[in-house]
Amino acid sequence: MTSHLLTPAERAQLAMMLEVCAFPKPGNVDRCHDYPDTRLEHFLASVILARPALEEAASGRGRIGEIIGHAVRQTNVHSGGNTHFGAFLLLVPLLYGGDIAGGNAAVTRTDISDAVAFYKAFALTRVRMNDTDELDVNDPRALDELRERNMSLLDVMQHSAPHDMVAREWINGFALTRRGADILRQIGPGREAIVEMFLTLLATEPDTFIIKKHGRSVAEQTMENARQVLDKKKVLETFDAECIKAGINPGSIADITIAAIFIALGEGWEWDS
Amino acid sequence: MTSHLLTPAERAQLAMMLEVCAFPKPGNVDRCHDYPDTRLEHFLASVILARPALEEAASGRGRIGEIIGHAVRQTNVHSGGNTHFGAFLLLVPLLYGGDIAGGNAAVTRTDISDAVAFYKAFALTRVRMNDTDELDVNDPRALDELRERNMSLLDVMQHSAPHDMVAREWINGFALTRRGADILRQIGPGREAIVEMFLTLLATEPDTFIIKKHGRSVAEQTMENARQVLDKKKVLETFDAECIKAGINPGSIADITIAAIFIALGEGWEWDS
Repeated sequence: MTSHLLTPAERAQLAMMLEVCAFPKPGNVDRCHDYPDTRLEHFLASVILARPALEEAASGRGRIGEIIGHAVRQTNVHSGGNTHFGAFLLLVPLLYGGDIAGGNAAVTRTDISDAVAFYKAFALTRVRMNDTDELDVNDPRALDELRERNMSLLDVMQHSAPHDMVAREWINGFALTRRGADILRQIGPGREAIVEMFLTLLATEPDTFIIKKHGRSVAEQTMENARQVLDKKKVLETFDAECIKAGINPGSIADITIAAIFIALGEGWEWDS
Repeated sequence: MTSHLLTPAERAQLAMMLEVCAFPKPGNVDRCHDYPDTRLEHFLASVILARPALEEAASGRGRIGEIIGHAVRQTNVHSGGNTHFGAFLLLVPLLYGGDIAGGNAAVTRTDISDAVAFYKAFALTRVRMNDTDELDVNDPRALDELRERNMSLLDVMQHSAPHDMVAREWINGFALTRRGADILRQIGPGREAIVEMFLTLLATEPDTFIIKKHGRSVAEQTMENARQVLDKKKVLETFDAECIKAGINPGSIADITIAAIFIALGEGWEWDS
């Protein structure tokens, strides 16, 4: 695959496709594992249907919050629930700005209108909220509060960053996205690099989606297990089966993996070899 | 999934995605089986990258032969070889005409320019030619001969129909496509219907791709095996393993399966339940 022939939106779609197909990916939907309500085909339908919003983002015109809303609405037409909300939160500014530097610039230009559009999109999804989250999206007063405080979407992400690693990417310069892309390029070409990169992120960062669902100690135990797989002290397939049995799915690191593949493809990393 | 919300091009992409994910699909690339040089990701990259050509087809403007050429060129950028040539040959006229009746009308309007564009696209692919094919695409005289005979693309398909079931769809009113769509609607909603439809076609029609590669008796034995699976006298997974071991891949019935899913989705069949 000669990735330089692709449009940025196509690169984003390929990144989404490659992430969900990568296997075995402990605990998440992958090529050989579905969840009862969310299946491989739901993820791939979302990859197909997000195209217009991804192209809109790549045009560098319009408002980021609204474009995220369009991506959610375009892909919210199947029964599999939210599949790519976190991924869109990363891909939209990165496409908008063209790369990580451009993405950083783009997020600083968000304002209250982006925050409102984002909250409206968020309300359409079934994304798990943190119990301690003050700005509950299901609370109609949340929008009023946003407006009273005149929060930009970047402010909202700053607010969420302590307990959400996807939001944290907005305020730390897409640090994990950058690290994931560097790991891919370091490992070299081929789809197998994706699982290794995913495991490496999982071994070094607690997944905040796991923390929200199961608490911090489960997230830390998951890190330790990922480390053991990388050190060849644990079999990947066993780890995968344990995660699935316990309902442990590292969904936020999967979102960051997509963003990292997108960046790496743009920098010449080849999946097809 | 509320399929009526999809554009025709999106429906075509979903059909391509659902076909390759359906599993176990005896002998072909599927969710849990790759060929060494052609993998699930190659098929899915082709699904993503065909979008502009599929949209062009759905616009009902331009020449069918050229649009098939665009689809081949847009998807010919990975190392997995031809993945969807036969599928494009069916999807492009069906998208162009909007449905089977429209597709029939569209193919009758092809002329020599479509035939030439098709042959040029064909030359880019690694599609297996029939040994007895007079109009060898790798022979530079083939184009001169086309022009001398003033053959339309429909004439070319008529010429190929005896030994190519995809070409045959052009001259018999998309008969197997129609039958496949009817089978899906009869079985009812859900992705599991796709494997059953595929097996039913495989049990009732010799796959011409298998004939070209292995001869007629192997194709007939494959039909018999598919029949035994449908009759619960043979285990599907055993049949799949036998096909893979012998290199028997029913590629033409896979192409027709894609067209049948496309038509069924347009008629309200739901994959997502």
